Amino acid sequence: MSESVKYVLDESRIPKTWYNLAADLPAPLPPVLHPGTKQPIGPQDLAPLFPMSLIMQEVSTEREIEIPGPVRDIYRQWRPSPLYRARRLEKALDTPAKIYYKYEGVSPAGSHKPNTAVAQAYYNKEAGIQRITTETGAGQWGSSLAFAGALFGIEIKVYMVRVSFNQKPYRRALMESYGATCVASPSMETQSGRAILAQREDHPGSLGIAISEAVEVAAQDPGANYALGSVLNHVLLHQTIIGLEAMEQLELAGDYPDVVVGCTGGGSNFAGIAFPFIGAGLRGGPKPRIVAVEPAACPSLTRGQYAYDFGDTAHLTPLTKMHTLGSTFTPPGFHAGGLRYHGMAPMVSHLKELGLLEAVAYHQLGCFEAGLQFARAEGILPAPEANHAVKGAIEEALKAKRDGTSPVILFNLCGHGHFDMQAYIDYFGGKLVDQDYDEAELAMALSGLPSVHV
Amino acid sequence: MSESVKYVLDESRIPKTWYNLAADLPAPLPPVLHPGTKQPIGPQDLAPLFPMSLIMQEVSTEREIEIPGPVRDIYRQWRPSPLYRARRLEKALDTPAKIYYKYEGVSPAGSHKPNTAVAQAYYNKEAGIQRITTETGAGQWGSSLAFAGALFGIEIKVYMVRVSFNQKPYRRALMESYGATCVASPSMETQSGRAILAQREDHPGSLGIAISEAVEVAAQDPGANYALGSVLNHVLLHQTIIGLEAMEQLELAGDYPDVVVGCTGGGSNFAGIAFPFIGAGLRGGPKPRIVAVEPAACPSLTRGQYAYDFGDTAHLTPLTKMHTLGSTFTPPGFHAGGLRYHGMAPMVSHLKELGLLEAVAYHQLGCFEAGLQFARAEGILPAPEANHAVKGAIEEALKAKRDGTSPVILFNLCGHGHFDMQAYIDYFGGKLVDQDYDEAELAMALSGLPSVHV
Repeated sequence: MSESVKYVLDESRIPKTWYNLAADLPAPLPPVLHPGTKQPIGPQDLAPLFPMSLIMQEVSTEREIEIPGPVRDIYRQWRPSPLYRARRLEKALDTPAKIYYKYEGVSPAGSHKPNTAVAQAYYNKEAGIQRITTETGAGQWGSSLAFAGALFGIEIKVYMVRVSFNQKPYRRALMESYGATCVASPSMETQSGRAILAQREDHPGSLGIAISEAVEVAAQDPGANYALGSVLNHVLLHQTIIGLEAMEQLELAGDYPDVVVGCTGGGSNFAGIAFPFIGAGLRGGPKPRIVAVEPAACPSLTRGQYAYDFGDTAHLTPLTKMHTLGSTFTPPGFHAGGLRYHGMAPMVSHLKELGLLEAVAYHQLGCFEAGLQFARAEGILPAPEANHAVKGAIEEALKAKRDGTSPVILFNLCGHGHFDMQAYIDYFGGKLVDQDYDEAELAMALSGLPSVHV
Repeated sequence: MSESVKYVLDESRIPKTWYNLAADLPAPLPPVLHPGTKQPIGPQDLAPLFPMSLIMQEVSTEREIEIPGPVRDIYRQWRPSPLYRARRLEKALDTPAKIYYKYEGVSPAGSHKPNTAVAQAYYNKEAGIQRITTETGAGQWGSSLAFAGALFGIEIKVYMVRVSFNQKPYRRALMESYGATCVASPSMETQSGRAILAQREDHPGSLGIAISEAVEVAAQDPGANYALGSVLNHVLLHQTIIGLEAMEQLELAGDYPDVVVGCTGGGSNFAGIAFPFIGAGLRGGPKPRIVAVEPAACPSLTRGQYAYDFGDTAHLTPLTKMHTLGSTFTPPGFHAGGLRYHGMAPMVSHLKELGLLEAVAYHQLGCFEAGLQFARAEGILPAPEANHAVKGAIEEALKAKRDGTSPVILFNLCGHGHFDMQAYIDYFGGKLVDQDYDEAELAMALSGLPSVHV
């Protein structure tokens, strides 16, 4: 049996800085606009929601941003995360490709999300903030922020998309175990929530609505800030520790990727694995192919419009230019809740426009099949979101077999599936189907994009 | 904020041998007896169930037993597991004690069980075995053997205690994700199962019954063997990698434990952390206090009888001398399924008789409270079984505070609680109570102990 191999890094080699891709972009990001005036905003416009340290990271063009000591101390609990050579999977696929995967499921919350949750909690604590509000879909982000809040003594309030709140009581219980409060969204606690419920009493909720509620509460409470688990530049920045570590670990293995694969919902785990490699390419190094894998039922990168749009449903957030399906778009209820967002991180969208990444969309059944093949070969059961990256990597490996090439494939396994067993039960029971979004709904959502002339 | 500290070991320092406490025992274990003749059995008597390599480990008195290369290759996927200094918990308790914990939840199945599952699958594969049957309670063992079976290409069939089969569909789904078959026990597939169901159609099952079913099937199928997840000497042997690593990690930390704490169900995770330290003491080294923590509702060490008994309900297994509540004893349905076994590992029982360990029993509410305090301080949510060890360690730390001493406490955090969220939901909802076993039932179970004169 050819064994899969783990590449560890000495703790002393945990990166001391995050990597900021903005420093190396060939063209700057389009400006962020005020939702009312539609004019570019300044740092002060974001001050009701975020500490100034995070706002400055959001707009920074410095290449390396120091990871504060206390954040590194906590990272050390599970970092450096392992990088594996998936030899058993290679053998099962009978592929000449080399497959490496970085595994973020070793964090206490089981996903990559604590990388930014810990950083955001730290900066908020430094700024004297006592409470943070946030939204969560499947619950990976909410439980990660709850974890970070417990460590820093910050109260966490999570608005959880109602359909997930009802379907995923275990994620909610994990948040409560860490001492956080979890509320089904839309709720009666906010104006945004009440407005939605007035229209439809049994509204299942959406990430866009939950963001509106969390933002509304934070904006009105001087002791509270808001935190977002993906999309924003500073969130993507914090996740680059994934790719930076992977780079060092691949060096130990004596390899460099020809293809880097990540799944994309809001874009943060993808950015985490990919940005350091994209940046190295932009600075004259090798240029691996970069592949973003998204769900066919919520295909912002492959079917969305590159346009200014709101991040939330109630239109409280600033306008950012991104690939969007429209802020009112509601994707079908497939099982990768972390990928059910109408927009894409502006920086990831920008890279797509610059031709620096490829995007591909897969339906869920093929992703579950790929995830189970991976589990039986490598022993780790991926989260449904991560199955999209597994599927992308397997497709690359099978293509290599057809083409007779032997590329080095690197993908990010962003979380384990231990909280997603119902999805696997539904898959085994034949209850899952490959759903497509509604074309008419997409057209309507896109027709509602705000008109902006910058 | 004083940070909790992780002690890692270079992969090259994963132990190359397991430690066999039998080599250092001041008195040998009482013999194992044939269930029919009640005479001591020989290796051949066990051959229908186990490969000869494991049988020889069962009776070996060699101190160091080599870990085969392919087993070490798989261990490397998650080993060495981290040892943490729980500084944040120390601070929360305001204790002068130093608290260290070894964390086995980093394995792909989320507990210590793969340490022996991988070894047992390897030896069975070497012996040409195609199928392994086993039992499981809460499902940690079953899913670990399913994981190991997937890696070695062995079919795994798991008889899962019916009440858990119904209550814990997610553990079952994890086994199925790894390709294993999972059957509710008692089942109609075996004579043992049918006999029980004839008496009571809706029997909730027990570990003892599930063992009977798995043993019966393996004994009748020449291509199949049986595997047990705890209790037996060779299982405890494989778990000693936990304590051996901890010893090296504590050396890095410059400490040696004054107290070693583990939770006990069948005894394997406890043996894993404790045996290397007990052995070092027996060979003239320091003698830490060794504390076994068991559930008050299933208190084999503190309330059981030290006597010959069967390991299963249908009395198919050999007789071993152990602390037992009687093989027909059914504990109340508390939430640490992995600790609901009527017997205790013969070697752990023997140590208790020799005065080499202390045993203490706690009710579940206090254990959940301890587990949540731990989670909010250290960021890891323990399994309900592991909460017993946390409770034991916290009690030691609070005692140190009262006494004004500063002992070094080491405990084993044998698994995470991500599959046990329903237990936490029940706890939060006030649905859990501290159940006691039925004294009359215990008396009846004990009165049925087989009469043996050795």
